[in-house]
Amino acid sequence: MTPDREPARATTRAHARFLGERTWPEVQSAIARNAGVILPIGATEQHGPHLPLNTDVVLPTEVALAVAEPLDLLVAPALAYGSRSRPLSGGGQGFVGTTSLRGPTFIALITDVLSEWLRHGFRRLAVLNWHWENHNFVYEGAYEALELRTRTDARIAVMESPFGQLSPETMNTLYPEGFPGWEPEHASILETSLMMHLRPDLVREELMIDDAAARSPWYDVLPTPDDFVPTSGVLWKATQATREKGELAWGEIVEGVSQALVKDLPRTRSDDA
Amino acid sequence: MTPDREPARATTRAHARFLGERTWPEVQSAIARNAGVILPIGATEQHGPHLPLNTDVVLPTEVALAVAEPLDLLVAPALAYGSRSRPLSGGGQGFVGTTSLRGPTFIALITDVLSEWLRHGFRRLAVLNWHWENHNFVYEGAYEALELRTRTDARIAVMESPFGQLSPETMNTLYPEGFPGWEPEHASILETSLMMHLRPDLVREELMIDDAAARSPWYDVLPTPDDFVPTSGVLWKATQATREKGELAWGEIVEGVSQALVKDLPRTRSDDA
Amino acid sequence: MTPDREPARATTRAHARFLGERTWPEVQSAIARNAGVILPIGATEQHGPHLPLNTDVVLPTEVALAVAEPLDLLVAPALAYGSRSRPLSGGGQGFVGTTSLRGPTFIALITDVLSEWLRHGFRRLAVLNWHWENHNFVYEGAYEALELRTRTDARIAVMESPFGQLSPETMNTLYPEGFPGWEPEHASILETSLMMHLRPDLVREELMIDDAAARSPWYDVLPTPDDFVPTSGVLWKATQATREKGELAWGEIVEGVSQALVKDLPRTRSDDA
Amino acid sequence: MTPDREPARATTRAHARFLGERTWPEVQSAIARNAGVILPIGATEQHGPHLPLNTDVVLPTEVALAVAEPLDLLVAPALAYGSRSRPLSGGGQGFVGTTSLRGPTFIALITDVLSEWLRHGFRRLAVLNWHWENHNFVYEGAYEALELRTRTDARIAVMESPFGQLSPETMNTLYPEGFPGWEPEHASILETSLMMHLRPDLVREELMIDDAAARSPWYDVLPTPDDFVPTSGVLWKATQATREKGELAWGEIVEGVSQALVKDLPRTRSDDA
Amino acid sequence: MTPDREPARATTRAHARFLGERTWPEVQSAIARNAGVILPIGATEQHGPHLPLNTDVVLPTEVALAVAEPLDLLVAPALAYGSRSRPLSGGGQGFVGTTSLRGPTFIALITDVLSEWLRHGFRRLAVLNWHWENHNFVYEGAYEALELRTRTDARIAVMESPFGQLSPETMNTLYPEGFPGWEPEHASILETSLMMHLRPDLVREELMIDDAAARSPWYDVLPTPDDFVPTSGVLWKATQATREKGELAWGEIVEGVSQALVKDLPRTRSDDA
Amino acid sequence: MTPDREPARATTRAHARFLGERTWPEVQSAIARNAGVILPIGATEQHGPHLPLNTDVVLPTEVALAVAEPLDLLVAPALAYGSRSRPLSGGGQGFVGTTSLRGPTFIALITDVLSEWLRHGFRRLAVLNWHWENHNFVYEGAYEALELRTRTDARIAVMESPFGQLSPETMNTLYPEGFPGWEPEHASILETSLMMHLRPDLVREELMIDDAAARSPWYDVLPTPDDFVPTSGVLWKATQATREKGELAWGEIVEGVSQALVKDLPRTRSDDA
Repeated sequence: MTPDREPARATTRAHARFLGERTWPEVQSAIARNAGVILPIGATEQHGPHLPLNTDVVLPTEVALAVAEPLDLLVAPALAYGSRSRPLSGGGQGFVGTTSLRGPTFIALITDVLSEWLRHGFRRLAVLNWHWENHNFVYEGAYEALELRTRTDARIAVMESPFGQLSPETMNTLYPEGFPGWEPEHASILETSLMMHLRPDLVREELMIDDAAARSPWYDVLPTPDDFVPTSGVLWKATQATREKGELAWGEIVEGVSQALVKDLPRTRSDDA
Repeated sequence: MTPDREPARATTRAHARFLGERTWPEVQSAIARNAGVILPIGATEQHGPHLPLNTDVVLPTEVALAVAEPLDLLVAPALAYGSRSRPLSGGGQGFVGTTSLRGPTFIALITDVLSEWLRHGFRRLAVLNWHWENHNFVYEGAYEALELRTRTDARIAVMESPFGQLSPETMNTLYPEGFPGWEPEHASILETSLMMHLRPDLVREELMIDDAAARSPWYDVLPTPDDFVPTSGVLWKATQATREKGELAWGEIVEGVSQALVKDLPRTRSDDA
Repeated sequence: MTPDREPARATTRAHARFLGERTWPEVQSAIARNAGVILPIGATEQHGPHLPLNTDVVLPTEVALAVAEPLDLLVAPALAYGSRSRPLSGGGQGFVGTTSLRGPTFIALITDVLSEWLRHGFRRLAVLNWHWENHNFVYEGAYEALELRTRTDARIAVMESPFGQLSPETMNTLYPEGFPGWEPEHASILETSLMMHLRPDLVREELMIDDAAARSPWYDVLPTPDDFVPTSGVLWKATQATREKGELAWGEIVEGVSQALVKDLPRTRSDDA
Repeated sequence: MTPDREPARATTRAHARFLGERTWPEVQSAIARNAGVILPIGATEQHGPHLPLNTDVVLPTEVALAVAEPLDLLVAPALAYGSRSRPLSGGGQGFVGTTSLRGPTFIALITDVLSEWLRHGFRRLAVLNWHWENHNFVYEGAYEALELRTRTDARIAVMESPFGQLSPETMNTLYPEGFPGWEPEHASILETSLMMHLRPDLVREELMIDDAAARSPWYDVLPTPDDFVPTSGVLWKATQATREKGELAWGEIVEGVSQALVKDLPRTRSDDA
Repeated sequence: MTPDREPARATTRAHARFLGERTWPEVQSAIARNAGVILPIGATEQHGPHLPLNTDVVLPTEVALAVAEPLDLLVAPALAYGSRSRPLSGGGQGFVGTTSLRGPTFIALITDVLSEWLRHGFRRLAVLNWHWENHNFVYEGAYEALELRTRTDARIAVMESPFGQLSPETMNTLYPEGFPGWEPEHASILETSLMMHLRPDLVREELMIDDAAARSPWYDVLPTPDDFVPTSGVLWKATQATREKGELAWGEIVEGVSQALVKDLPRTRSDDA
Repeated sequence: MTPDREPARATTRAHARFLGERTWPEVQSAIARNAGVILPIGATEQHGPHLPLNTDVVLPTEVALAVAEPLDLLVAPALAYGSRSRPLSGGGQGFVGTTSLRGPTFIALITDVLSEWLRHGFRRLAVLNWHWENHNFVYEGAYEALELRTRTDARIAVMESPFGQLSPETMNTLYPEGFPGWEPEHASILETSLMMHLRPDLVREELMIDDAAARSPWYDVLPTPDDFVPTSGVLWKATQATREKGELAWGEIVEGVSQALVKDLPRTRSDDA
């Protein structure tokens, strides 16, 4: 399709932590020893000319895999389709390839999947979202799952912005010219750097550019005004991304998620004592 | 997790045909040249002690990848969660790990995704399902997508049972003792053989067994009677599976899907002439 | 309306087994003695020029009536509208008169009705479907009813294809030229023969024809290609139907349903002992 | 089931006006000549110890059949399940046998069915309801059908209370002791009289009684207080019903519906001229 | 906007009974002493040239406030949007300003709000509706709330027509020329009189007129025929409204609601004794 | 109810800008001159012991009224019930009085209301939200409204956080000890100050306290851990609120909203020229 790119490379990894690659008796024994399950949630959404549509799926999946072993979590098949992209945080629905769900569909999808794991007997559940527009929908879905399957002994950690807790030092390194806020940080320094670190095969480095909407007000307008959307889909500066920045941020993000889960989804629950 | 299995092997392939790994300008040019999109649909469902939960996801994804290049199709992120498992064709909802959606959720998910691609301007769409219980739900979702986005120039091929067209010779080779019907062919000869051929790293060959429900009547009962469900989750004979049978069936299945799409989603549509 | 047909004949029968014709105290005493309820489910769907739109309603209703007395079942008002007709098993939505429900509507309808009977205290419930396209929707509706009204002492028999268990001898008699599969068996030999046996007043014998789609592939396409649909709506051979074939098949179908219910909805439940 | 009643009597009539008993070419020619379609809507609801659960289905179906010929209407399969019974107009949900739908299910059911007929090309549609609790739900369903299938040349007559227009003389004859209002007129004089006239085989005359709730306030209370519900389910006086009253009322009701449809769904529409 | 009207006047009153103006500890102590909650439900619907769109919101809110103190009820934020207006009881959807909800939205809104109060521990709940078209939807919403949150110790009073119980004397005073029925009593004598009494600042007295649809049959038609709708939106006689009539009716309505609640939502429940 | 507070004070104002207080002809003329409509959206949610449950309703309503005259907007009846409260931004669902909607209900409510105004012909629409948890739900509702009623000439301004744009000087004045972020700014300095400025009658100044959750991590957990929730419901420092701070912030908020609407919902649209 893109003749300048080889047709197939071995990058995504089968992994002993993927729930989907387990058998049911393996899941049964996992539940018996109080293993948990973590659900990566993303979107199929434009990320400029240099990042793939699945950027928001790859990143939370990688984070989930990175924390799965020490925390004894199974990584569930990611939700690859999320809620509608908004112009000021994702370019909006106008880019071809951006493939989104209606809000109630997305909420129900989360609810159904989580309620199944509650039914199976999992007591340690986590959802790990990367797509900014999924905020509140994800929480709503998790809330409804507990309404359907009330279990006083199960817990769901809802992590909607695992990238939002970087240290000041790291922020300065990433954004030496100043931090624009997380909304325009789409297909820009952080996401590009992380992808360069984790999945360089998916980054078209030669196409990295800086861009911005002509206007980025604090409110939205429908139908989307043309000047809310940069033609490239890059909402800020991709050229300042580097693999080193990615590695630096990656370490902190994984550490942050890990600490959160150690604290709130411990392998030995206090009520087990 | 399973100490007898190495933690990570490189098997799943990044692929130039994955829609999710494309950028939006690449999608744009794909639509411009009348490329199509194919959606693998499966389930997260027990497949006995020897096959992984994602068997129904792996298989249609592999078929889609196999036909994508010659037909100029992009392979969309698979729907990894499907409709509820039924005892007589998948063991039912009683096995841990089987993670299913409510019917309306599943229909809406298909509708939303397909309607997005119709909105983008794709004119050649295909859905390729492997999970028996998804029948009719898949068609309903596709039907609704066209209700939402009426386009007289787009076509959706709905392939719900791509495994159902094997030649008599192949059927005899696969089932020398006779064919039990497709419903009990779950985690049995065909699926196991195909997985041995395509993803041997995911098959626990040492755990392959033959099994069957004590009763498999032509009707269902709720709540599921115990004797409708084999304790292993294997609905028939897995030990008769071989990699050679898988290769044989694989060739015919890919050829069947390919011919279908050449016929009904041709790269040059007659109405383009 | 059709001047060649008399305006009204006495054929449909009021029946002591119709739930709708009972009073509430009669239902109360029925539940007290552990009587059950059976719900015929069909469709309002074209059946060629010789069979009425309600063919799929008449047939399961007649079967239900036939087994009701020995099994002590009440026959509930049939669901006369079902899910969308598909071209390869019913001619599709393009024929006027084919009056279908959206999937979620149909599922909810089944769920609501069954959950009411569970609420009333019925412990022996059956659904008897005739419309091919209702598969899986019917099961989903029944499954949801039990989710709403969990009762460990009630059972629902879900019979989606009561015509699929004919003996080889009968199949040979019905299809001396070979069996085309159940999907094209629409408005064809079996359905026409059964209607000639049960409701000859509704069969336009002089209009019986043989027909077939120009193409009947194993997959579907939307919008429906013209060559998937025979102009008559008859998907195979109606002229080979006879009243004798109908009588023969009828006996086996009634016997099959009866045995299923004796086995799985017994009048005296083992847990009553 | 009820040993004092014969098992089957020939009363319900097959009828040349039933849509369900037509073939699709007959429907096609009906639409071509601008025939219409009328949908009886009722409920499966207790009607005391003397009237069957399907009283609200039988009555609008009979009215529809009575007006169908002169107005050239096809009578569609009735909706036999309606919205929840309320204590003060139907006894409420507490009687076994009363089988009701949730509001959104019922609305969707009406919408789907009517939208199909609009799609077929019918331009003269009517819904004829008898169940008091269906008010507003029926209108909502019809409204939504037109939202889905906007047709400026089609009309839907929504008749929710065809019994409400009796002449003062008839009212005096029916209710010599005074009219209690339509809400308690459930399983009472009018309905019982009509059933005695139309379907005497379904009336248990020996069980007719007078009854009333201990309280019938102008408001409702949930959960239903015991004193809102007469133990028999008869909300007023059934013993004053006679076949003659039924015949008298019947004539006026049929005449009223007929005049309405002549006026608002004329066989020759002014816009055809 | 309307230059002949002053921009702002102090009329709507903050009130110690408004739930929305309470703090959560105040609600907590209210529940502890078994205070109740009452929900006014109305519509945003045309009421002719002389009454505001919020007439159906103002009136039940005023009634609720009038009974709140003696009955120890909190008055919840009113539902200002209701179900679709119908021509014969509200002029229909054709008037600009009439802002309505789809039926399922409206039902879900009521269900969600009531189920929250059941969850909080309120045991005395009331809904007080004024909009004719909300009938049955309101009851359905309340019924569903109890399905979601079964509480045997809570009660919901459902008052859909608090204006329907006026004494014969008052009716004669209000309607010296005869009562037209409640459906055309829209923006007419009763509503206008009540608004003149309660909120004269919102009545454009100089624009009060008499009007009526050219036709007001007992059935509805969709799309709405022109002659079902008076051009003014007044369905009967507004000029006969007076402040005195309003005061008279007001007293009886408040008294009727009060008596209902004293009876069925008593401050000391018998089951508390 | 609260004996230390007078039962009724005149504070909320009737207003010539309230859509609900307009007649339909007034709305008609408003649309004719291209007036717009603005919908305040809030929540009924605990705001500590000193602020009323309707804080999130009062504030956007006041902002809307403040900008309505110069921008020629009608202020629609506010949505007083919003999406579920979350512990870290509103205290969560555990406080009595917090009365929330399920996500799909809330989305549908917004969709229905906005789609009505699009149907009426309004071309300038705005939604002004104050409740943090409503983010993305509000945008989704507005997006769906345009899906239902495609109008290329109408625009909807979606303002979800009108308080987020204060100048650095004002932020320093408000938060001399540093800004904690908007999430814990619940019932704290900004909201309390604004209420003291706008509606002092609704502020229990004697009950203002400082408080905070024992933990406020960047993620959520379900069921809510006790240490995520301060017992008072105040998420930060209410005692630092002053009327002067409120006045200062108020001026900037109103100015910010006003400028946004002047820019994107101008009274004279460029496409009118």
